[in-house]
Order: sequence, then C-alpha cells, then structure tokens
Amino acid sequence: MRAAYIDSVGPPDRIRHGELPVPPTGPTDVLVRVESVAVNPVDTFVRSGAYTTPLPFPFVVGRDLVGEVVLAGPGAAGFAPGQRVWCNSLGHEGRQGSCAQYATVAAERLYAAPPDIAGEDLVAAAHPAASAHLALFRHGRLRAGETVYVGGGAGNVGGAAVALAARAGARVVATARAEDAEAVLGLGAAEVLDHRSPDLGERVRRAAPDGYDVHLDTSGRGVLGDAVDVLARGGRLVAMVGLGQGAATLPLGRLYTKDAAIVGFAISNATTADLADAAQGVLRLLRDTPWRPRIAGRLPLSETAEAHRMLEAGEVRGRLVLTLS
Amino acid sequence: MRAAYIDSVGPPDRIRHGELPVPPTGPTDVLVRVESVAVNPVDTFVRSGAYTTPLPFPFVVGRDLVGEVVLAGPGAAGFAPGQRVWCNSLGHEGRQGSCAQYATVAAERLYAAPPDIAGEDLVAAAHPAASAHLALFRHGRLRAGETVYVGGGAGNVGGAAVALAARAGARVVATARAEDAEAVLGLGAAEVLDHRSPDLGERVRRAAPDGYDVHLDTSGRGVLGDAVDVLARGGRLVAMVGLGQGAATLPLGRLYTKDAAIVGFAISNATTADLADAAQGVLRLLRDTPWRPRIAGRLPLSETAEAHRMLEAGEVRGRLVLTLS
Repeated sequence: MRAAYIDSVGPPDRIRHGELPVPPTGPTDVLVRVESVAVNPVDTFVRSGAYTTPLPFPFVVGRDLVGEVVLAGPGAAGFAPGQRVWCNSLGHEGRQGSCAQYATVAAERLYAAPPDIAGEDLVAAAHPAASAHLALFRHGRLRAGETVYVGGGAGNVGGAAVALAARAGARVVATARAEDAEAVLGLGAAEVLDHRSPDLGERVRRAAPDGYDVHLDTSGRGVLGDAVDVLARGGRLVAMVGLGQGAATLPLGRLYTKDAAIVGFAISNATTADLADAAQGVLRLLRDTPWRPRIAGRLPLSETAEAHRMLEAGEVRGRLVLTLS
Repeated sequence: MRAAYIDSVGPPDRIRHGELPVPPTGPTDVLVRVESVAVNPVDTFVRSGAYTTPLPFPFVVGRDLVGEVVLAGPGAAGFAPGQRVWCNSLGHEGRQGSCAQYATVAAERLYAAPPDIAGEDLVAAAHPAASAHLALFRHGRLRAGETVYVGGGAGNVGGAAVALAARAGARVVATARAEDAEAVLGLGAAEVLDHRSPDLGERVRRAAPDGYDVHLDTSGRGVLGDAVDVLARGGRLVAMVGLGQGAATLPLGRLYTKDAAIVGFAISNATTADLADAAQGVLRLLRDTPWRPRIAGRLPLSETAEAHRMLEAGEVRGRLVLTLS
C-alpha cells in the first residue's frame, strides 16, 4: 500500500511517500481503507520528536482518519465491512498512523461515521473538536452557568470550544480578530474581544468581573500571569498549548490564594473511554451547532511532507486534509 | 472580655491587647470560652494584609481555638454548655478571630473535642493537619497505591501529610533534615531524603522512577520547574505556600504533555463541608497515627503581638500556643 512514513524523527522532509505492507489485523482490530486524513500541529511534534512517544519505524505519520471498514476482527464487535468509520488516536504511543491507504485501528478507538456528516468535516473536526471537548469538560470540569474564556475563538480548537461551551449553558467570552467577531458570536459567544486591542487585558477583566471559571487559551499567545489574575475563585486554567515556547512565569501566591488550578492536558494521553466520550461530543457539535472546522486546503497523500512544511511555516489557517484516492 | 485585636492591618505591633465587648451570639451560633489558640503563619498574612480578606475593625486575630461551650443558639443543634469544642476557621472572611476570652462560632464550623485528645495537641494540629488533609485528598485526590512527595516532612503540615498519606495506603517520599529522618520514617514515610544533599533532585527522581502522583512541597523552598519534571503522568502538584515569594517559572509544555496539574489551595477558601471532613481527618490523625504537632512554646494572650513577631522573624519551629487563663 502507499503510505507517508518516516524512518527517524526530524524535519518535514524526513517524510517519505512509498510502499509499505498492509498492516496485520489483530482479533479486536479493524482494517480500514483510508479516505481522508487531517494534518494537525501535533502530527508535526510527533514527526519532529518534540513530543516524545514510542515510534516503531518505519512509522506511518498521521492521527485522524475517515474511511471504510475492510475487515473486522472476530472481537471487533459492531463493525462490518463497508461501514464508514472514523478515528482520532492513531500515530502515537506505538500505534502506526493514518497516512496510508490502509490502517489498522483497535475497535475501541474506532467510531461509526454517520451518513449525514461530510467526511471532510468529520476528519477535520476530529482532533480540534475532541480536544476542545476534553479541555472544557474532562479537564476544565465546565458546568452550566459558569463563565469561560476562550482565547483564539476563531481557530479550529477555539471555535469548537466556543460552540461546545455555549451549548452546555456556559457564558463564553472569546478573543478573535475583529473580522472574525461576527462568526464567533454566531457560535454562541456572549462577547468577542479583538485580540489586537491595546487594552485587551482590561477588556477581558471587565467582561467577567467575578473572574473566569474556565480559561482556555488556544492561541498560545496569552500571558500566564494575566490569565491567573482573571481566574475566578476555584477557576481552572486548562493548559494545552505552548510546547516549545519555553517557561512561563507563574504567580503561585495569586494562584493558590483563590484555589485556582492549572490543568495541563494533551489529548495524546486521553484514555479510550475519554476519547469515546469526546467522539460523541464531536458528532453533537457537527450536528447541533453551526460550528464547522476551517479547512485550509486539500492535498494528495504524496504531499504529506509538504503539508507538514506548510503547517510549520505558519502558511495555513485551518486544517489541511490529505485525500487518498 | 480581654482580646488581641487590630484596628488596621500592618506589622505585629498593631496587635493590641485590651477589652472588647463579648460578641453577640446568633440563632445558629455557639459562644465559646476560649482555652487556647494556635498562632499560624496565615494569621500573620491576615494581620499584615498580605492575604486580603474582609476584616471588621476592631478585628480580633486568630483562626483556631479549643474551648468550652458557654451558650448555644436554638439552631445550633448538638452543642450544649460545658461541652469541649474546637474550631479552625475563625479570623477571616468577616469572621472575628479566636484570640479572646470568648468567641462566637457558627455551629457548622465547630466540632466536638474528644476527651482523649489533649487540648494543646488539638489546637496546634487544627490548622496544619486540616491543611494537609485537604491538600492530599480534596485537592490532590490522593488514592491508595499512589506515590506522594512531601517536601518538608518534619514540619507541622509536612509531618501531618506524611502520616495521613501513609495511613491512606500511599507510598510517601519526604524530605527533611538528616536529624529528623528517623522521626519522619516513624510517621510512615517509605524514604526520607536529606533536603540539604547536593544531589537532592536526582535522589527525588530515583525514589520514584515513574514520577509522583501527588507533589506537596510544604517548605516553599522547592523549584517549580523541578517539581513539574518529577510529576507522574496525570500528577497533581498541590500549591499551598509561596505567598510573597514572587513568581515561579513554569515549564508549560512539560506540564501539559503529561496531563499534569498545578492545583492551588488555600484553606481559607474551604467550604464548611470540606472543613468538617478535614476535622474528622485531624481527629483520626491524632488518634491513629504517631504524629503530633510540634509545639514551639506557650505564651499568654497578652503576648499575641510578640508571638506574631517571633513567627515572622523565623524564630520558632512549630506552633506557638496562646493560653487564656
């Protein structure tokens, strides 16, 4: 089968496009014919080695897929050939990735893809929307009636977070470029602040005088100390970006005197149970809210290395989707 | 009644010793004749203004007490005159303190003092042991079989944490001075590391190769970045000291890639339900483990200002107990 893979970690051009054997399928596995794959920032961290995880070489890159069941092991209950499916947890922790014509997926990591959701939306939503879901509910413990700050509300993770939090009955204050404000309000934000306004800090504070119960900066641009200062008593700052940005300055006294917490979270650590819960959140988000993932472009599998390069160079806004055809 | 009180926040000599009216007792309150009060570091933060909290002036200082019920309001079920009682949540959030001959305590903040526990031990244990209990179990979510780091295992909070964690079935690694190691092992620590050893960081790491599930540095001397590095996947660093020590450096990427959290905690924010739960933990600790609070000395109520001065000057190791007689 054709696959995009690496023989060692390193820059994007380590990704080769060539032939590998179709992977074996264990008793509780499903062999999937891949239709499309999304390229996520985390895929570049795995490929570069910035995110350390066991990688059997040759290692097929890629985390998400939408595809069709070819073969289901006898213990892979609920899956049958021809069924449309999706997954968002390949390509790390020893599991081969999705950038190939075929991928073996453990049944507990595979979800049915409903016919009413476009495959391209689903594959592009899989990672950012599941991340937003777990960040808000699993790690941020968001409840109805609470106030949430979403930094970068027009991004893929941020937009999903705005829509999920609003749907869950929270009051959402988001930042975005001025030109994106209307779209973010449309996702359910109560207030959208221009992230370039010089008095942003003061505006963020004024938008929630009692502080934020959950603080989620998906942009990685925020200042940790400022974020701690706007947390409510008992507030949770969910830290999920910032790899490679070095150390931040944390005012410990201001954190603990209000029982606030900084909750680190990487979806790569999520249990299969948490991922399955998030998968339901992804589907509800695509069905019940106006949010759709931003798709920056489509490339063939042979251009996987180029997709990684473009992403790292900051040349794309949204997901690149790789198509297998 | 005689009381130690302040008319404004400031240095220790703001504390006056003089006459104030006996406080009124509401329908769900209990009037307590105070026998002894412990002086805690947090009392100095309240007095100095470092910890901001509503203070009605003249403001009686002091958080903990052991005493005897004089009068119980009709809604203060379960309390009767002559009963020995204790409390550890006066003296902040608008509540007058305990450094007086009489104190009014809301019934939900008052606990029966068992006859088999010495009043001096109980009052000196009230704050550090309740803090350790809430830090480990409420905020650290410690479970049996987990590994805990306790920095400063010979201190009052640290020793209580060692004994509580060991009793709960956790494996405890503590730091202490070499001369205190035996005592800390006696509290149930699996390993005690000399906090002055030059390769302490490496020893801390080796003592828990898979990392620490809960990290509790009661000494305030540790380096946040080092602590994050030794956390297990999903580990919780409970931050409860460090007020006034300025900002620490937090390696965010190292935190979130292992789903670790920094959980800030100040007992001043604890709910009455959490405090009542902690009170049971304090009693169990004094009954079922060899841990006893370290009492540095006893002073009369008239010396409250001197007690604060000594504590701030670092002249005492352990609790100072003020006696009303």
